[in-house]
Amino acid sequence: MSQKKSPKDSCVETSYIVLPSHTNALGGVFGGTVMSWIDMVGAICAQRHSNRICVTASIDALHFIHPLELGDTATLFARIVYTGRTSMMISVDVYAENPIRRIKAQCVKAYLTFVALGEDRKPTPVPELLLTTESEKQAYADAKERRKALLAQSRS
Amino acid sequence: MSQKKSPKDSCVETSYIVLPSHTNALGGVFGGTVMSWIDMVGAICAQRHSNRICVTASIDALHFIHPLELGDTATLFARIVYTGRTSMMISVDVYAENPIRRIKAQCVKAYLTFVALGEDRKPTPVPELLLTTESEKQAYADAKERRKALLAQSRS
Amino acid sequence: MSQKKSPKDSCVETSYIVLPSHTNALGGVFGGTVMSWIDMVGAICAQRHSNRICVTASIDALHFIHPLELGDTATLFARIVYTGRTSMMISVDVYAENPIRRIKAQCVKAYLTFVALGEDRKPTPVPELLLTTESEKQAYADAKERRKALLAQSRS
Amino acid sequence: MSQKKSPKDSCVETSYIVLPSHTNALGGVFGGTVMSWIDMVGAICAQRHSNRICVTASIDALHFIHPLELGDTATLFARIVYTGRTSMMISVDVYAENPIRRIKAQCVKAYLTFVALGEDRKPTPVPELLLTTESEKQAYADAKERRKALLAQSRS
Amino acid sequence: MSQKKSPKDSCVETSYIVLPSHTNALGGVFGGTVMSWIDMVGAICAQRHSNRICVTASIDALHFIHPLELGDTATLFARIVYTGRTSMMISVDVYAENPIRRIKAQCVKAYLTFVALGEDRKPTPVPELLLTTESEKQAYADAKERRKALLAQSRS
Amino acid sequence: MSQKKSPKDSCVETSYIVLPSHTNALGGVFGGTVMSWIDMVGAICAQRHSNRICVTASIDALHFIHPLELGDTATLFARIVYTGRTSMMISVDVYAENPIRRIKAQCVKAYLTFVALGEDRKPTPVPELLLTTESEKQAYADAKERRKALLAQSRS
Repeated sequence: MSQKKSPKDSCVETSYIVLPSHTNALGGVFGGTVMSWIDMVGAICAQRHSNRICVTASIDALHFIHPLELGDTATLFARIVYTGRTSMMISVDVYAENPIRRIKAQCVKAYLTFVALGEDRKPTPVPELLLTTESEKQAYADAKERRKALLAQSRS
Repeated sequence: MSQKKSPKDSCVETSYIVLPSHTNALGGVFGGTVMSWIDMVGAICAQRHSNRICVTASIDALHFIHPLELGDTATLFARIVYTGRTSMMISVDVYAENPIRRIKAQCVKAYLTFVALGEDRKPTPVPELLLTTESEKQAYADAKERRKALLAQSRS
Repeated sequence: MSQKKSPKDSCVETSYIVLPSHTNALGGVFGGTVMSWIDMVGAICAQRHSNRICVTASIDALHFIHPLELGDTATLFARIVYTGRTSMMISVDVYAENPIRRIKAQCVKAYLTFVALGEDRKPTPVPELLLTTESEKQAYADAKERRKALLAQSRS
Repeated sequence: MSQKKSPKDSCVETSYIVLPSHTNALGGVFGGTVMSWIDMVGAICAQRHSNRICVTASIDALHFIHPLELGDTATLFARIVYTGRTSMMISVDVYAENPIRRIKAQCVKAYLTFVALGEDRKPTPVPELLLTTESEKQAYADAKERRKALLAQSRS
Repeated sequence: MSQKKSPKDSCVETSYIVLPSHTNALGGVFGGTVMSWIDMVGAICAQRHSNRICVTASIDALHFIHPLELGDTATLFARIVYTGRTSMMISVDVYAENPIRRIKAQCVKAYLTFVALGEDRKPTPVPELLLTTESEKQAYADAKERRKALLAQSRS
Repeated sequence: MSQKKSPKDSCVETSYIVLPSHTNALGGVFGGTVMSWIDMVGAICAQRHSNRICVTASIDALHFIHPLELGDTATLFARIVYTGRTSMMISVDVYAENPIRRIKAQCVKAYLTFVALGEDRKPTPVPELLLTTESEKQAYADAKERRKALLAQSRS
C-alpha cells in the first residue's frame, strides 16, 4: 500500500430524477431515499480509492439544506477527503435542479466513513491520499479536524 | 405550546426481518436500507412529540457497530432526547437478533434532528420536554453537549 | 419443547409512515402493501415464540375496517393467540394515526398461521402457550373456535 | 345495474418470475410479496366485473400449499365467484412452474372480497353474475356457503 | 431439439394496475417501469418456449404509442415470433384500460431477443417454430425482415 | 429556439452498485433493472438539452454485450446524438467494473428517443445541436442513418 492515490481518481457523480416512489407525504423527497443514494455513491467512491469491497462505518454529518422536489434532478458528487489506516472519509454533495427553470441549489452536505474489507472480510489498509491542489489540502485539514472533534465527542 | 411532554409519550419501536432485497453484495444489510428505516422511525417519534408533520434536518451521528445479517430481526427504538424551539433531536438504536440463536447485539446508534412544520410548511414551535427520570436528564444533557459541539464545528 | 411460553414474550409492535410508494390510485394505502407489513410482523412474532425460522401457512382472516391514508402513521401489533404442534396462530391489529389530529382508528384485523421449520426445513414442534390473563385465555378460546370453523369449512 | 355479467368476462391471468427481490431469507418467495400479487390481480378482476374502482375489503382465506422458489414462474388466475350488492368475492389460484423441469404445482389458493366504489368513493352496486357452466354454479354455491360461515363466525 | 413447437404454447398474458410507485413526475407511468414489465413477460415467454433459463440479449424496438396513466390496468401480451439457433425474438404488446371508461388503447409495441442458456450457462439450441396460422407466418416473415435490417444496420 | 447547444452541455454520468435487489435468479443483473437505469439517465440528458420535461418515445436499440454481476459497479454515460424538431436521440453506454479486479467492460449499448413536452403537455421544439468535434459529427451522422433505417422499417 505504498502507492498514494489522488482524490481525483475516485470521484463519483450520479443523478436521479425524483419520482413519486421517492417522495414523502408532502411531495418532497423522502429523507431515507436520499440517504440511500448518498450511501451508495459514497461506497462507490471508497471502493474506487481502495480497490476493495467497502462497508459504511458511520455518517459523520448529513445536513438537509434545501428541499428536493418531485420532478427535480438530484445530482450527487462524492469525493474522498481523508484516509485512516483502513478507513476513508467521503464527502457527498447533493444538488437539485429543476428541469425547466434550471435553478441549481445544494440540498444536502454529508460526510461518511467507509472501511475497506480484505478477502477475510476484516478491515484492510487503504492507499494514502496524494494531495496536490489547495482545495484538496483544505478538505483534508477540515476532515482531520472534524474527525478529531468526533473522537473527542465520543470519548466524552 | 406551553404544555411540556414526557419523552415516554413519543417512543417508537419497530421491527423488520432482513430480506434479500435489503442486502448488499456481501449478504449483510445494505447501509442505505438501515438509514431509511432509521429516518422513518425517527420521523414518527418527532411527529408523535410535536403533533406536526416533521422533516429530517440532519443526521448528527450514525455509527454501524455490529453487522446485521440476512434473516436477522432488526429492531429499532426511537426516543426524543432534546428539543430546540422548532427542532427535536431523536436517538435511534438498532438491535439485531438471530431468530434461532436469539443473541441480541446493538448494530447502529444514531442521532437525527427533525423540524416540525406548520400548515404554512414553515418551522413551528414544538413542546418542551418534561424530564422525570435520571436517564432522561442524562440523555438531554448529552444531547445538549452534542449539539454545542456540532454548532462549534460548523462555525469553525 | 416442554417449556411453556407466555404470549407477552413474543409481542411485536411496528410502525410505518404511509408514503406515496405505498399508495393506490385513490391515495389510500395499497392493500398489498399492508398485507406485506402484516406478514412480516406476524413472522417476527412467530419466530420470537418458537426460536425458529417460520413461514406463512395461511391467512385465516384479514379485514379492512377503516382507510389508511397517505401521511398516516400505521402501527401494527402482533401477538400469538394459539399454538398447534408445529403451527402458531398470530393476531395482527393495524391502527392508523393522523400525525396532526392524532385520531386513532383500527384499520385492519388479521389472523395468520405460521409454521416453524427445523434445520431440515421440515415443520418442527413449538412451545405451548402459558396463558395467565383472562384476555389471553379468551383470545386462545376464540382462536380455537376459529380454527375449528376453518377446518370444518375446508372439509366440506 | 340490471345487466348480468358472465365470470368469463372478468378473468385475469398474470405471471411473474420469482427474483431475489421477492424472496425471504430461505430463498423461497416472501409471503408478503405473493399477497401483494394476489391483491393486485384480484382487484383487476373486480374492476373488470364492476367497471368501478375497487378496494380490498377482506381476505377470506389464503393457503400456502406448495413452496414457490427463486427462478420459478408464478402464474396467478383470478375469477369472480360471488357477488353481494356492492361486493365481489374473487378466487385467486397461484401456480409455480420451474422453467426447466416444467413441473406445475398449485402454491396458493385464496379468496378475497372487494368493494366497488362510486364517484363519491362510497360503495356502489355491482352487476350480478350470469352463471352458465356447472363449475361456475358450483363455485358460486361454495362461495355462498363460505360467506355464510364467515358471517356466522364474525357474529359469534 | 428436433421437435417444433407452436407459438401458442408459450403465449404469456400479464396485468398490472398502475400505482403511484410506478409513475413519473407527470403522473403517467415511468418508462423504466414498463420496460421492466416487458422484460419479465418476454423472458417468461422465451422460457416457456425453450424450457431453459433465458436472458435478454437485446431490445430490437420499443415504441410508446399512447400514455398509460395512474389507475389504468396495463395488460401485456408476449408471444414468440422468430427463432434463431439459440435465440428467440419475442413480441410484446401493452394495452391500457381505464377501469371505469373501459376504453382500451395500445400503449407500447416491443420486440426483444432472448438467449436460452444451458446448464453450463452457455447459449443452447431452442426448438424451431411450428407455424400454422397465417398471422403466425406473417409475424415470422416480418421478424425475419426486421432481424435482417438490424444486422445490416449493425454491420454498417 | 434559435440557440444551438453543444452535446457536451447535457452529458450525464451515473453509477450504481449491483445489489441483490437488482439481480435475476442467476445472480446477474435483471434486464428490466438496467432498462430502468438507462431510461432515467437518458431522460435526464434529454431534459438538460431541452430545459423541458421529457418522456420516452422509443428504444431504438439496446444490446446486452457483457454480463453485469452482483457487486459490480455499473456506470452509465448518456449523451445526445441527434435532434428532430421535438425529439432527441440519446445514446447510453453502460460499463461494469469489478470493485477489486478493476476490469472494465461495456455491458450495454442503447439508443433511446425522448420527446420534449411544453406546459400544455404537447411536444415542443428543442434546440438544435452545435457539433464541433469529429466524434460528435460522426455520432450525428450515424444516428441520422439509424433513424432513416428505423423509419424505412416501420413503413414497410
